[in-house]
Amino acid sequence: MADAVVLGAGSWGTTFAKVLADGGAETVLWARRPEAAREIDEARRNTRYLPGITLPAALRATSDIRAALAGASQVYLAVPSQQLRQLLREHGEAIAPEAPIVSLMKGVEAGSRLRMSEVIAQELRVDAGRIAAVSGPNLALEIAQQQPTAAVVSSTSAETARAVAKRARNDYFHSFINADVIGTEFGGVLKNLVALAIGIVDGVGYGENTKASIITRGLAEVTDFAVAHGAERETMRGLAGLGDLIATCGSPLSRNFTAGRLLGMGYSRTDVIARMEQVAEGLASVDPVAELAAAKGVRMPILEQVRLVLDGGMDPRDIAPHLTTDDEPIEE
Amino acid sequence: MADAVVLGAGSWGTTFAKVLADGGAETVLWARRPEAAREIDEARRNTRYLPGITLPAALRATSDIRAALAGASQVYLAVPSQQLRQLLREHGEAIAPEAPIVSLMKGVEAGSRLRMSEVIAQELRVDAGRIAAVSGPNLALEIAQQQPTAAVVSSTSAETARAVAKRARNDYFHSFINADVIGTEFGGVLKNLVALAIGIVDGVGYGENTKASIITRGLAEVTDFAVAHGAERETMRGLAGLGDLIATCGSPLSRNFTAGRLLGMGYSRTDVIARMEQVAEGLASVDPVAELAAAKGVRMPILEQVRLVLDGGMDPRDIAPHLTTDDEPIEE
Repeated sequence: MADAVVLGAGSWGTTFAKVLADGGAETVLWARRPEAAREIDEARRNTRYLPGITLPAALRATSDIRAALAGASQVYLAVPSQQLRQLLREHGEAIAPEAPIVSLMKGVEAGSRLRMSEVIAQELRVDAGRIAAVSGPNLALEIAQQQPTAAVVSSTSAETARAVAKRARNDYFHSFINADVIGTEFGGVLKNLVALAIGIVDGVGYGENTKASIITRGLAEVTDFAVAHGAERETMRGLAGLGDLIATCGSPLSRNFTAGRLLGMGYSRTDVIARMEQVAEGLASVDPVAELAAAKGVRMPILEQVRLVLDGGMDPRDIAPHLTTDDEPIEE
Repeated sequence: MADAVVLGAGSWGTTFAKVLADGGAETVLWARRPEAAREIDEARRNTRYLPGITLPAALRATSDIRAALAGASQVYLAVPSQQLRQLLREHGEAIAPEAPIVSLMKGVEAGSRLRMSEVIAQELRVDAGRIAAVSGPNLALEIAQQQPTAAVVSSTSAETARAVAKRARNDYFHSFINADVIGTEFGGVLKNLVALAIGIVDGVGYGENTKASIITRGLAEVTDFAVAHGAERETMRGLAGLGDLIATCGSPLSRNFTAGRLLGMGYSRTDVIARMEQVAEGLASVDPVAELAAAKGVRMPILEQVRLVLDGGMDPRDIAPHLTTDDEPIEE
């Protein structure tokens, strides 16, 4: 009979369970591996994903997903995005009938190209108003260290958004709400593409001017893409758009930044994939997003340049001078 | 009979003279100190302001301002903002009658609170269409190192903007144009206030999430302020607004960031001013901008918090959790 259950004990799921518990919610965290659940429950540690962080004493963990879900008032999902559908198929029936279902995930399902909230609605056959998505400038480790930040809880139902935001808040984590689920989710997906470009120019050796130019143009591109898919322009200027973009591009630890950096240093796409333990989500999104953009007639020059670098058709050193902006160019 | 003259041989004036010379313009740089002019002209160095940078062989320098101005087709101004009026009063008559006059400066005149283009128009009694302002993500040292970047040339006259943009461009420096001088100039002034806030939270020890939240909210504040003073919203989302803001906040070398950092570490306003060799422009702008904002009814919560920290009325550690955003807050 927990107030909240979090499915997935990676760095973000574990951190979010801590956010909820620190806000006073009785929280259960489900970990796939029994030894991970035991470590969290008994030693208040998740050494694999959050080294150095002591978890709240009130946080419970289990590897029994059915027990975790039983009667939980709110369900938070933080599993790898390509595993979500299967998990819901197997265990969705155990979710309490009225419980809000909250996606903490940032990704698009391969093949279907559906956003996470769409996968939830489709697989559980629930009304969109029961689903929420959380996004913002939310590097997990910093939040686990209780550094102050803010996030957006988005749902087509204001009641659901408010109920989730009231749970998911505490001294260091401030939740705002909006109704633009499309924009909130796309912000979290598309920022990875800009982070790739930032990584590339960092790998070449360029500094803050070049990166600032790319983030400025990148936000315009990402906004045009999201708006063409039904998002509100204003969402992209808020925490889930610009906020998340800046935090991701400022963190040299992100996988997309690292992948871009290797490309900028001269490694090929094949080399980069081989050298990285986990696939950077941005790399997999470049082609699908470029195709969707083309279908909607959205111009994305930064993305196109990243694609050219990936395909070996452009020297990473040439990526920035071709930048365009919303300011008017002069004729040659 | 130079194509361009740059007045002021600090880091930005010297860098811009290099940009012009590298773009093929016959360029003369005026330095106040004869020994500085001689070093630039003979050794192709400006060791005080641009250590390690070799200047173009074609760049000429002089400490004779009248000789520098004589017949120059374009005049670029890069002197300290509080010295501009006096300089124009003494030597303005030597400017060629049709020459565009270009401000490279970011600041507001103390007392009059006029922007630099307004000081130029008032003091020289020239039409606004002859004046241009250049701004963007333009950290001088990175440009001197020929790292690619972009900037905006702004003038109420498209002809002037275009003529300047065609001169002020080369392989690594890309110029766009716009007609919003107010927004372009305010972007360069107001970013310093946000950089102060970023410095403060950095001094406290907070990371990318907190900074990204502040930049996101900061852009909204700065935009509201500029628009209330006649700027276009779109300018603030471009290179002269967001671009300059991100580059400045990403550079730990900036004076405003450093001043903020000391405040965040617990030093008082008096301590900070005493410890810094040069006054950080942001510190001096906090009160005047807050008063102008209040007069126009613009809410600026970040600026207000910086002001409270400066006055000793707020612990720097508390600066971020009070953040508001354009997303809807939930009731307590």
